[in-house]
Amino acid sequence: MIDLAHATSLLTVDVGAIVSNWKRIGALVAPAEAAAVVKADCYGLGMAQIAPALRAAGCRSFFVANLDEGIALRRLVPGAVIYVLSGPVVGSEPDFAAHELIPVLNSLAQITSWSAFAKAGSAAPAAALHLDTGMSRLGLNESDLERLVAKPEILTAVRPVLLMSHLACADDNDAAMNKTQLGTFRRLTATLPPIPRSLSASSGLFLGRPYMLDMVRPGAALYGLNPSPQHPNPMTQVLRLQGKILQVHDVDSPMTVGYGATHRVARRGRLAVVGVGYADGWFRSLSNRGHGVIEGVKVPVVGRVSMDLTTFDVSEVPVDKVYPGALIDLIGPGHGADDVAAEAGTIGYEVLTALGRRHTRRWIGYPSAQKEGVRP
Amino acid sequence: MIDLAHATSLLTVDVGAIVSNWKRIGALVAPAEAAAVVKADCYGLGMAQIAPALRAAGCRSFFVANLDEGIALRRLVPGAVIYVLSGPVVGSEPDFAAHELIPVLNSLAQITSWSAFAKAGSAAPAAALHLDTGMSRLGLNESDLERLVAKPEILTAVRPVLLMSHLACADDNDAAMNKTQLGTFRRLTATLPPIPRSLSASSGLFLGRPYMLDMVRPGAALYGLNPSPQHPNPMTQVLRLQGKILQVHDVDSPMTVGYGATHRVARRGRLAVVGVGYADGWFRSLSNRGHGVIEGVKVPVVGRVSMDLTTFDVSEVPVDKVYPGALIDLIGPGHGADDVAAEAGTIGYEVLTALGRRHTRRWIGYPSAQKEGVRP
Repeated sequence: MIDLAHATSLLTVDVGAIVSNWKRIGALVAPAEAAAVVKADCYGLGMAQIAPALRAAGCRSFFVANLDEGIALRRLVPGAVIYVLSGPVVGSEPDFAAHELIPVLNSLAQITSWSAFAKAGSAAPAAALHLDTGMSRLGLNESDLERLVAKPEILTAVRPVLLMSHLACADDNDAAMNKTQLGTFRRLTATLPPIPRSLSASSGLFLGRPYMLDMVRPGAALYGLNPSPQHPNPMTQVLRLQGKILQVHDVDSPMTVGYGATHRVARRGRLAVVGVGYADGWFRSLSNRGHGVIEGVKVPVVGRVSMDLTTFDVSEVPVDKVYPGALIDLIGPGHGADDVAAEAGTIGYEVLTALGRRHTRRWIGYPSAQKEGVRP
Repeated sequence: MIDLAHATSLLTVDVGAIVSNWKRIGALVAPAEAAAVVKADCYGLGMAQIAPALRAAGCRSFFVANLDEGIALRRLVPGAVIYVLSGPVVGSEPDFAAHELIPVLNSLAQITSWSAFAKAGSAAPAAALHLDTGMSRLGLNESDLERLVAKPEILTAVRPVLLMSHLACADDNDAAMNKTQLGTFRRLTATLPPIPRSLSASSGLFLGRPYMLDMVRPGAALYGLNPSPQHPNPMTQVLRLQGKILQVHDVDSPMTVGYGATHRVARRGRLAVVGVGYADGWFRSLSNRGHGVIEGVKVPVVGRVSMDLTTFDVSEVPVDKVYPGALIDLIGPGHGADDVAAEAGTIGYEVLTALGRRHTRRWIGYPSAQKEGVRP
């Protein structure tokens, strides 16, 4: 039971919309497989609620960032294939085996450790190999790969079941680097056994059929972010963040608002103070730049966002719609995470992962959500 | 038992240093009382560990932002005085009484509701009154106060035990607004009964004796942030954030690094990839701007910070000090939260409150910390 009387903010996640986004991508890329990237607690939206719903909808393969996320996910999706993107840090190999987690091996060092571990016991899971085709982040480069191919006994011991790489500029349809990375990936993987290959995450899979290969790994697109910023967003929105008005007051020139007195009131008007601040992931960079929406009216942030509070100019909203307890949409229909990100000077991904722990959270649109009520 | 083999990052909070900062402020402001602001989970550092240690050291009064934080704190510090800064949202008054929480009443609407609640039962706690002296955020303005003073029966019903206000520009020693707000606070409170008054948080209390009044409300200074940015930081540092190296690789011109290929490698060198990204509160705005420290050597962030990973140029670090499993200081001695904030384009407060949930956390320097070991 969710108690809205306590809440100073309400975060609603439409799990049904996430499942629908996953299904749409699955249909688009078939016969390639659509996995689901659920790292960072499903980009801050709740792995415990979302991963089982995706599994129930038919998703077989999941990606997390590190071992602890993998262990948590294993309990949620018992039969699924789970890849751990960072691979094993030294000494953690047995925990991968114990929880049936597939490490993504990113370096010769990880491959050597894993092959030693695999040779020592019979219980080691298979592994994925990550090839660096231009990110210069994680992954084997071309010379690493040559050294690996020269030692077939190591390759045999690690039992690779997936070859993967990652695009650096996939959100730019026109970037020449996309085609270069695809070519490099094709060329490098040709030296390895013919096992499934995966190159694209949310943005890459929209670059066309050649980028889909055997598996795509959407994350952002599942959560409603626009995978192709040059085009209208094809994904369904999943998120709504509402902040509760704590106080409304009349202002007039020459008052100032907030820390540093950065906003000067120019004319008679009304301000509403909402119980959401940067400690809730409502970035301080939205100070004097962001906005919310109430009753269809855009209400600008005035003054600096503070830790627990943000002030909005509600002068243009009908008086009877603005009162303590009323909700202002901070992220929602027509004003999604990508839009908030643009105002904050970042990307939608960071808006999602920054969502704070104090929001009263509600998940809707999936079977077990029916059982959870909301007390207004 | 903390398992460092799993950890991709380690966050160490020195609770002893926090207690020491609180004691130093207590000595500075005596006979005024030093309360402790523990909202937003002690600015992200762990209320469950910190609040009891402050209580054991003699702290009597605590401030939180909202009701749920107050309920959580009540369990941690049974005998303490707890103030809830946002006051009651409509309908939540009984929960304040049930958990013995003192609401900070910010508006005539809150005062009216609270006085009705107090009159209806005998169990209502006392309350604090918040006067707006220039923030234009929460609090009673002058005309509100006149209306309140005209109704002494309401004032009697709410039983105020603290009169408070908040400075807008306290971190600027020279701001004329500080003296103006102090004068306004003195003038407004003169119309009310002679009960304790509090104006200053971390920065204000360093503005001198007149700003200390009967109680100060430090938060940031307890957690090691510099309360007076124009002067050297008088507080003890409390925080260390270390990221684990996942992979080291050699690079050379003309390679590019990371998303968007924003960093071009100019010369032969080495990069280390660390398992910390913006989902951990290591802001994306640190891309190509922030830095870490390893073995006393500053190592710059190269390329864009991604969700789970950040790449550092470690070319200047001795080769034997950089290997998978080694730790890079992201926040720590000589490179505190205020410094990271300056590189990220924000303030230390937001660096603290953004610290993510994936860091393996360790609290040191207080009695019960002795019992918790760390498995290396």
